[in-house]
Amino acid sequence: MANVDPDIQSRLLAQMRSPRLVALDSMNYWITHKRRALLKLLKKVDIYVANDQEARSLSGENNLIRAAKRLYRQGPRMVLIKKGEHGLLFYTSQFIFSLPAYPTDKIVDPTGAGDTFAGGFMGYLAKTKQINEITLKKALVYGTLAASFNVEDFGINRTMRLRLKDLEERLVKFKKCVLF
Amino acid sequence: MANVDPDIQSRLLAQMRSPRLVALDSMNYWITHKRRALLKLLKKVDIYVANDQEARSLSGENNLIRAAKRLYRQGPRMVLIKKGEHGLLFYTSQFIFSLPAYPTDKIVDPTGAGDTFAGGFMGYLAKTKQINEITLKKALVYGTLAASFNVEDFGINRTMRLRLKDLEERLVKFKKCVLF
Repeated sequence: MANVDPDIQSRLLAQMRSPRLVALDSMNYWITHKRRALLKLLKKVDIYVANDQEARSLSGENNLIRAAKRLYRQGPRMVLIKKGEHGLLFYTSQFIFSLPAYPTDKIVDPTGAGDTFAGGFMGYLAKTKQINEITLKKALVYGTLAASFNVEDFGINRTMRLRLKDLEERLVKFKKCVLF
Repeated sequence: MANVDPDIQSRLLAQMRSPRLVALDSMNYWITHKRRALLKLLKKVDIYVANDQEARSLSGENNLIRAAKRLYRQGPRMVLIKKGEHGLLFYTSQFIFSLPAYPTDKIVDPTGAGDTFAGGFMGYLAKTKQINEITLKKALVYGTLAASFNVEDFGINRTMRLRLKDLEERLVKFKKCVLF
């Protein structure tokens, strides 16, 4: 559920027939002005997705691990904090996962990086039969790679032309940059 | 070479007899007030170590990959950018390595985290017979883990009691948090 008024998100969710996995995005405006509705909604979703500022603002915690834990206690089964150029932090009761962004200096337009990430992440999980630690980590990696392409050109110019082969090729490079 | 006046660092280096590996740290004061001496010194060291602000300030680049590349062109064979809670970026002509910090909410005193990191990193390399991609990545991991202990208490209280076994145990946990 992309970022809109939590009341609208709530009505949308009520119309879904037993969704397999629900992720919720939000933003500073709703966190400040519709805090109570947003917190109520968090109890009904599987994954709460926020950037680092939003996570700090909604949780009241500066340390992001503490912020993730506090947001987790609000109800979602998983908390995903996007840190832009610094990557992401994923928190569940089973595991914590910290992943850097794809190291690139080819940044034309960062607009939409977070949404492209969410699309790649949810898209991978939608194709996958199981949702577990391994597939969640892979989905986070694919979301990261999708976002790394989107920033290479304005709007969706690069993402429109994106093929699975491009992601697979970049995955090989990414592994060399982050695995040890 | 820890952070002091680049002229002093330069005189110190001149007294070393064919050092195996030289790493240089600096800070905002010398970057601003002794820029030329610092840039000259960079040509004589193997690794330039900086935090993200220092790297941006000395390179004039906001994007950290570009900053690392530009600093690399100043002479050092390797550039290590420390990003605090966001981990590190390591750049050489052979490879780029991006590593998150150990995800912890047990932070009592962050003072000295960068120096403990540098100590763990250089200490690992000093014990190692070879300096290559594999050992450099491992050294960066051990530096990261050493720093994660140091922040758990004031001053060097925790680091004084640190044993290799503690690092090895935390390495297992860290791998679960960052590998996929």
